[in-house]
Amino acid sequence: MEKIILTGDRPTGRLHVGHYVGSLRGRVALQNSGDYDKVYIMIADAQALTDNAEHPEKVRQNIIQVALDYLACGLDPEKSTIFIQSTIPELAELTFYYMNLVTVSRLQRNPTVKAEIKMRDFETSIPAGFLAYPVSQTADITAFHATAVPVGEDQLPMLEQCKEIVHKFNTVYGETLTEPEIILPDNAACLRLPGIDGKAKMSKSLGNCIYLSDEPEEIKKKIMSMFTDPNHLRVQDPGKVEGNPVFIYLDAFCRPEHFQEFLPEYSCMDELKAHYQRGGLGDVKVKKFLNNVVQAELAPIRERRKAWEQRIPEVYEILKKGSEEARKAAARTMQDVRHAMQIDYFAE
Amino acid sequence: MEKIILTGDRPTGRLHVGHYVGSLRGRVALQNSGDYDKVYIMIADAQALTDNAEHPEKVRQNIIQVALDYLACGLDPEKSTIFIQSTIPELAELTFYYMNLVTVSRLQRNPTVKAEIKMRDFETSIPAGFLAYPVSQTADITAFHATAVPVGEDQLPMLEQCKEIVHKFNTVYGETLTEPEIILPDNAACLRLPGIDGKAKMSKSLGNCIYLSDEPEEIKKKIMSMFTDPNHLRVQDPGKVEGNPVFIYLDAFCRPEHFQEFLPEYSCMDELKAHYQRGGLGDVKVKKFLNNVVQAELAPIRERRKAWEQRIPEVYEILKKGSEEARKAAARTMQDVRHAMQIDYFAE
Repeated sequence: MEKIILTGDRPTGRLHVGHYVGSLRGRVALQNSGDYDKVYIMIADAQALTDNAEHPEKVRQNIIQVALDYLACGLDPEKSTIFIQSTIPELAELTFYYMNLVTVSRLQRNPTVKAEIKMRDFETSIPAGFLAYPVSQTADITAFHATAVPVGEDQLPMLEQCKEIVHKFNTVYGETLTEPEIILPDNAACLRLPGIDGKAKMSKSLGNCIYLSDEPEEIKKKIMSMFTDPNHLRVQDPGKVEGNPVFIYLDAFCRPEHFQEFLPEYSCMDELKAHYQRGGLGDVKVKKFLNNVVQAELAPIRERRKAWEQRIPEVYEILKKGSEEARKAAARTMQDVRHAMQIDYFAE
Repeated sequence: MEKIILTGDRPTGRLHVGHYVGSLRGRVALQNSGDYDKVYIMIADAQALTDNAEHPEKVRQNIIQVALDYLACGLDPEKSTIFIQSTIPELAELTFYYMNLVTVSRLQRNPTVKAEIKMRDFETSIPAGFLAYPVSQTADITAFHATAVPVGEDQLPMLEQCKEIVHKFNTVYGETLTEPEIILPDNAACLRLPGIDGKAKMSKSLGNCIYLSDEPEEIKKKIMSMFTDPNHLRVQDPGKVEGNPVFIYLDAFCRPEHFQEFLPEYSCMDELKAHYQRGGLGDVKVKKFLNNVVQAELAPIRERRKAWEQRIPEVYEILKKGSEEARKAAARTMQDVRHAMQIDYFAE
């Protein structure tokens, strides 16, 4: 069986470091590993519309931003098929038929959907399309026979839902669809990077994100203002590293060689943490180190992004070509699905 | 503005006299009236799958039965575009996007959906696709810019839902879709013909339908066994005509000239009813009259059906050609919808 990856992002804003350590960085590594036969990266505009139906211009404008972030991070159109979800009508069609295989109450019980409904203050006015978005995700995954879906931990219930629908489809209509596996980041700090204010969720409206496209000064300003241990008032006070955003960011970004380069007086993260915990290490010093580490990681990304910003028509061409290629694959699956469901009336 | 009709049926069985007087007969008249620029007749297989997902073979088999019933009743492929719903991917795509414009609770409040959920004993296990079928109907109607939808009275809430979605779409994305009007049968008896057992709903499982394809002996047997006024025990007893299926069927089928032909001792329906109401008119006599009337109406339909049954490949060709034509119209609408929603990224 071919090894195929599908993953992507909603184009509702520029991507930030949470996307980067939680998914993008790993995606690039998977792309370059040579372990996969196909890598599909989807800009999920149709999914973004499920809760942004009244702001299509926001979704449209952010497509190019997300594409720039992708290319900047090292997603390579020669190795990965980057495409726009809404250009593949087969994804809507699969969603339509899969919706018959899942009950309303099952969708309402989905923990991810429940959490997102709460976050969005939908209460009773949940758009039907939003409730159905796990079904739409199942369509995305199965259209490409994805075997592996690298996403955040919060997406586990979505993958469960997908597996259930795949199982139901194959049971009712015969073996047609492929069951995917989730790939989680192996580093716990990367599973869900907090905002710089310590809040669990990074969001544009909270203004607590470091964006991949941020300039060095903005990054520095954000890092130096980061929330740390609120009880670590004086340098000599013992400090906590658990739940401390600065150390979570260090766990997510810092590599052993960074100590040699930026903080040679410590040999490794354990030593740095121990000092902070017993007291005597100031937040400013740790933040400066984090700033150097993050700057080192983001500088080449920002440079590549700026280069791509000069080549927008080429970026559009990449998306167009990727969308055409993705559509061919989805159309093959749709043909198989039609055959299995016995709705291929005029097939030769 | 062009005058365009869209209507259709779920292919879950052969069509019966309820379909005929409630919709089919009127449809043929509308087709032949010359008042409409386009008439689209849809075999709603995708809608049938929303509550028959596990029995695709039942849906598939009944497509040809419904098509035969259509042609037998006088729907003319030269004048009407007869097509199969699932062959038009744009209908699923429109459904997908319209779902963002309607809330789950609004769908749950839809009286038609509520009634059908109850009838099907779904309780909490309502397939998501079934809950969303008013949205799917909106897609069907708007894809063809239908201005008139001739359906039964029970479908009024569906049309209301459709108008709401059209209004929301046009408000959010700009004037794109056409708001339809419902056309109800003008004869009250035709709005909802009861089963021969007097039950409000005709259904295959209850065995209380007269089918358009029934042989004369079956029709006679069914009519002679019809439920009437249960208190009209002896010929001389006064009888009720309200709620009496035999009289409801007569109201739906009988034309003035039928008295001259089959029951010359009465001049009109009012005279017949008056006699039944005051007593002295037996059920058998009325049923025999009804049988003659129904046989006269159904005989030419059955003959045409038998002729078409000998030409199945031609019927397939009609459906194929109709589906191709309908798809072109739906694709044009989809293009306009994409443009309005700003998701026509690569449009020239």
